[in-house]
Amino acid sequence: MKQNRLHTAPGAAIAFQGELGSFSHHAARKIFGAAIRPLSCFSFDEAFAAVVYRKAECAVIPIENTLAGSIHQNFDLLAHHSLEIAAETSLRVEHNLIVHPGVGLRQIKQIYSHPAALEQCRRLLRRLRAIEKVSFYDTAGSVKHIRDRGLRSAAAIASEDAARIYGMKILRRGIEDEPENYTRFLALARRGKYLRGGPKTSIVFGLRNEPGALFKALSVFALRNIDLSKIESRPIRREPWQYLFYLDLQSDSRSPECSHAFRHLRELAPYFKVLGSYPTF
Amino acid sequence: MKQNRLHTAPGAAIAFQGELGSFSHHAARKIFGAAIRPLSCFSFDEAFAAVVYRKAECAVIPIENTLAGSIHQNFDLLAHHSLEIAAETSLRVEHNLIVHPGVGLRQIKQIYSHPAALEQCRRLLRRLRAIEKVSFYDTAGSVKHIRDRGLRSAAAIASEDAARIYGMKILRRGIEDEPENYTRFLALARRGKYLRGGPKTSIVFGLRNEPGALFKALSVFALRNIDLSKIESRPIRREPWQYLFYLDLQSDSRSPECSHAFRHLRELAPYFKVLGSYPTF
Repeated sequence: MKQNRLHTAPGAAIAFQGELGSFSHHAARKIFGAAIRPLSCFSFDEAFAAVVYRKAECAVIPIENTLAGSIHQNFDLLAHHSLEIAAETSLRVEHNLIVHPGVGLRQIKQIYSHPAALEQCRRLLRRLRAIEKVSFYDTAGSVKHIRDRGLRSAAAIASEDAARIYGMKILRRGIEDEPENYTRFLALARRGKYLRGGPKTSIVFGLRNEPGALFKALSVFALRNIDLSKIESRPIRREPWQYLFYLDLQSDSRSPECSHAFRHLRELAPYFKVLGSYPTF
Repeated sequence: MKQNRLHTAPGAAIAFQGELGSFSHHAARKIFGAAIRPLSCFSFDEAFAAVVYRKAECAVIPIENTLAGSIHQNFDLLAHHSLEIAAETSLRVEHNLIVHPGVGLRQIKQIYSHPAALEQCRRLLRRLRAIEKVSFYDTAGSVKHIRDRGLRSAAAIASEDAARIYGMKILRRGIEDEPENYTRFLALARRGKYLRGGPKTSIVFGLRNEPGALFKALSVFALRNIDLSKIESRPIRREPWQYLFYLDLQSDSRSPECSHAFRHLRELAPYFKVLGSYPTF
């Protein structure tokens, strides 16, 4: 039977960056269900650290958005920490213009949100030229901010969840320019907490600086018909113009072909780490 | 004879993002010499547009930093516009704490700079906890700002050039955490302006969503011993989870092996564009 949730004890703490009602919080509920205890963190570092230092069972972090691309800081944190990917999910990003109940468009003097959300709603914001745009560290946090401070001449751009959680009103729904806007999230746990396995596997490796090195590394998968769904490269600190490569493979790391491919890759890659094999929710 | 500059008419306008004294301005002088007319732009978009609409001969833009990684907006702009890469260079990024002449460390209440520069000087900024950090759109622009406003209780983080150009004082030199910090810049021109050719070639392509597609694309270079120095992937708008790939090749596009490889790649890639073959200065 296909499970539609990752099992965790009721009330288990799940860390994420942002306030209650953020897209990461939504993704956490999609992966673990509604019975989790949300642990809101100021930064991605803090969300990783919460799992490492056992303040949380898991962290849920965004890894990639279909408009903005990869969230590089989280790739770097995955290589740096030894957490394991336990699951993934993706959400359609819908932005809403949120205000205090009773406030209309004419009263708004400022719009608060995360810079990425402001960027994704350019069409509406161009029409509202006279209104000042204010960058904030989090979408849901901007709703909380205008509520807590009683800013009735301000609006925030955030999710429907954020409006509901903070008891605020949606003035305009679906204000993003591009409806094909999805974010992929990963659930991260300490190694060994969840049975490793699932149809998708993520790895990271570093190669010798030799001609054809990346081609040879990809050949270990192509020779075994293992499909690649994503490649990302990130610079290595203290080694200018050298990179770590991150791959997503459509294969379970416990399968014979994946085991063979990994043994083959270890011959070629001085650094190699499996980040996890996991289900999609 | 190896030229050490890209030729342009004296007084030719060269566009870049940021104020006079920015790292991009420095890179422009390294590529074209000191006789250029610098055209300071507010954004990367504006620098690209200045070349497209003939307000500038060339634009010089950062494309990659050894700590932060690729500057994705500029990869996207390269695919979107039809400009050609005419040259590349790289600079070591050295940050300095810059103040009004006569001002000492104890008088500073605020430090202005680009968020990336503030991030790269974390060690010093941690020691200066009581001082407020202020994000600004440009490093050199932050020096100009504290000078123009006469902010004697503020410092800026920027290059030595910026201190010199605005007549300000370097209070601490080389304050970056990591000295191995380089940025690579590209000079962009309208197609056909410079004779296409040089030891390095950049391309961009899109592939069909088929198993092994990227492996086959890389094989066209591996089979001809053409070395790959960089791979970057960027999401395609309106096609969730599909990517454009950018490669840097150690080969001149006019060479027979490169021509053969490109013909071979066109069989595999529905979208393919040569961004330029160019020298390094």
